[in-house]
Amino acid sequence: MRLLIRRVAAIPLDGVHDLLPEVDIAIEHGRIRAIGVAPPDFIPDQVIDGREHVALPAFFNAHTHAAMILLRGWAEDLPFDRWLNEKIWVAESALEEEDVYWGAALACCEMIRCGVVGFADHYFWMHQVARAVAEAGMKALLAWCQFGLGAAQEVGGVGLEDTVAFIREWNGAADGRIRCALGPHSPYMCPPDFLRRVVKEAERLGVGIHLHVSESEEQVRNSLRAYGRTPVAHLADLGVFEHPTLAAHCIAVSDEDLAILAEKGVYVAHTPKTYMKLAMGMAPLDRFLNAGVRVALGTDGPASNNDLNMLEVLRITGLVHKNRVGDPAAFPHHLLLRLATQEAVRALGFIESGVLKPGAPADLILLDTRGVHWFPRHSLAANIVYASHPSDVRYVFCDGRPLLWDGQLVTLDEERIRDEAERRAFRMVGAPMRLMRRYVG
Amino acid sequence: MRLLIRRVAAIPLDGVHDLLPEVDIAIEHGRIRAIGVAPPDFIPDQVIDGREHVALPAFFNAHTHAAMILLRGWAEDLPFDRWLNEKIWVAESALEEEDVYWGAALACCEMIRCGVVGFADHYFWMHQVARAVAEAGMKALLAWCQFGLGAAQEVGGVGLEDTVAFIREWNGAADGRIRCALGPHSPYMCPPDFLRRVVKEAERLGVGIHLHVSESEEQVRNSLRAYGRTPVAHLADLGVFEHPTLAAHCIAVSDEDLAILAEKGVYVAHTPKTYMKLAMGMAPLDRFLNAGVRVALGTDGPASNNDLNMLEVLRITGLVHKNRVGDPAAFPHHLLLRLATQEAVRALGFIESGVLKPGAPADLILLDTRGVHWFPRHSLAANIVYASHPSDVRYVFCDGRPLLWDGQLVTLDEERIRDEAERRAFRMVGAPMRLMRRYVG
Repeated sequence: MRLLIRRVAAIPLDGVHDLLPEVDIAIEHGRIRAIGVAPPDFIPDQVIDGREHVALPAFFNAHTHAAMILLRGWAEDLPFDRWLNEKIWVAESALEEEDVYWGAALACCEMIRCGVVGFADHYFWMHQVARAVAEAGMKALLAWCQFGLGAAQEVGGVGLEDTVAFIREWNGAADGRIRCALGPHSPYMCPPDFLRRVVKEAERLGVGIHLHVSESEEQVRNSLRAYGRTPVAHLADLGVFEHPTLAAHCIAVSDEDLAILAEKGVYVAHTPKTYMKLAMGMAPLDRFLNAGVRVALGTDGPASNNDLNMLEVLRITGLVHKNRVGDPAAFPHHLLLRLATQEAVRALGFIESGVLKPGAPADLILLDTRGVHWFPRHSLAANIVYASHPSDVRYVFCDGRPLLWDGQLVTLDEERIRDEAERRAFRMVGAPMRLMRRYVG
Repeated sequence: MRLLIRRVAAIPLDGVHDLLPEVDIAIEHGRIRAIGVAPPDFIPDQVIDGREHVALPAFFNAHTHAAMILLRGWAEDLPFDRWLNEKIWVAESALEEEDVYWGAALACCEMIRCGVVGFADHYFWMHQVARAVAEAGMKALLAWCQFGLGAAQEVGGVGLEDTVAFIREWNGAADGRIRCALGPHSPYMCPPDFLRRVVKEAERLGVGIHLHVSESEEQVRNSLRAYGRTPVAHLADLGVFEHPTLAAHCIAVSDEDLAILAEKGVYVAHTPKTYMKLAMGMAPLDRFLNAGVRVALGTDGPASNNDLNMLEVLRITGLVHKNRVGDPAAFPHHLLLRLATQEAVRALGFIESGVLKPGAPADLILLDTRGVHWFPRHSLAANIVYASHPSDVRYVFCDGRPLLWDGQLVTLDEERIRDEAERRAFRMVGAPMRLMRRYVG
């Protein structure tokens, strides 16, 4: 399909232009052919009037557990251990394989509506997530979570062999839109022997590793006690970082840890909404950036964070860290946009994308700027970061294919997914369906 | 008009029910006549099908400078002094009286769309704000900002006499929907003699006082140096708190300050998004509440905060303070909802409202719960606070009168206001209109 977006404002994130006030964007064979003036030989199949809209690279969500959307709002205002032990794990014990498909599909609907075309997912029964991603037309880095401990292996039902089979089946699938990684949960849930096996498999399969790292000071203390090393140094020793690594959180990190992460090119997934909601403290984004550590923004799972809204993640990241470092000039909005686009793209292992320029994959979104909350439009970029609403996202393209068209989901049956996911979620938490659904008629 | 909302879920905030899963709400003469089952003699003029919606008390915004919306996005990512001196004050020097009307009207559009029916405003040329509020059908507490210093008096063009005339003209106007207060900027911008005159006028007029208090440690140090008292103690000495007082911010407060604020029944307006965006630190919401200080949530002005989205204020307040105190169980969502409804109502001096019960003013909103970001609907209240979007707000009523009906503004001409406000905003900042508007065609 040849698509022409006419007379749109564009934030290309190309390192050259902050804003192109009015351009045409020509899309062909899934890529941007031209941005500026459409080539004379370009005969579009479809034209979008881009006036009063702003185009920018689509967002990528660098860390989530998409299917945990089934537990959104189920465990509110609780201490962390009760949140996890009494609510989340109890409900997850009722998780069926097919639930993961419906949860992931619901999450895809929500992410597309927030301008997200790709995400790094870390959960169980990942072939079900892969199915949803393939149908949604999105991109993803999928990692099957593994605990490497006896009993917990039961959750999700697989050992390392099964995840290897999953990777062989799905890595590179859906026209290369699906990439796979190994997904050991974390150094505190996976003993060294298990992590060594993971590293060996990563080498054999030529894939990366996505895991949780240093979420609290307590984890660091325990690691020092057990291994005489911080979790970061311990993972480096085990050779994990010799493979492309996506390390979620890194809240409690030393300067030595940061030097290792920077040197090894590890991507840190930064998900501040969850840190706040669960009162986990705050990962030091300023220190990451100053040390040269690569950072990408994400939502984390919607059971802790309550949604998958990358616009909100942009906003919260700017607000929290400006205040944390005491400098309103820090973390300018173009930096935040880059962390949710081109940096997140690379964190997922998709080298291209995250920029609007000729030749780049046509992963882009259009936001309608006519809502009262955009006026006056002194700065479109600042408005996106600090004032936009998900409902402003009107068009979403992934490799040039529309996932959202004039506010309507194209690839997914939103109503069916929504209702089926809710039915399954209510079953999981054992709620009496009749009562829970009374208010919806 | 007799209105019946049928089969709606309701969060009444009545201290009794967390959620009424399915009720009818009968509205008559601007008040709620019944909630539960409509009385048999109730013959409605209009009926809303409330299924798949949730009703709750409308939000009130306890502190803003509405017309500063004209500078939204104009001064981004700057150190505070450059933000204020090089950008905001320069642009405000070009402010014309009529601009305030259009800015306030634009702000009213945005607030209604976020479920807000009332706000406490503190700015210049407040009769222009009053005009906008009267037309919008909203409620407001309006305070004309005064500096009490020679030169700065020029801004807004009035002395205390003019604000007294404004109060005489507008207090109680628009069927009692408009209330007025005196608006000395702050103890650091108003010398003691001026504040004494303000107190005398408050007594004569029988109105309250809305001002900024203790926004930084530096202000406290300066006050101690000048008066030997903290700003709070200084204001108490001057008799300010003998009148209903709305004190914005109170970021730097001692336990003695809190005891004074609690004893005097002062309302603190808490606007965390601005504190974060301008890196001002964070007001201690936990200490306010523990000390018995009344607190209401607000946005602050959209020049610093970028919008007027009370849903976002709820969310940020919960997230920030859970993390600040290190307890995910703190600041539960029902508390947050109360601070943005019934507490904010009282902060504005409207004793009634902020609750759904028979006899209460029909200040309420309906949110559509069918968006994918609401599913599964384990907790409607948690979804409102942590996952809802402004576009979910479909109906807004103030004293039973619809301000928003099925997503359409009823009282204001949104397109005209939006475009005229933008035209004036671009004039204020001296932007070349042709260039600035190119991207909107």
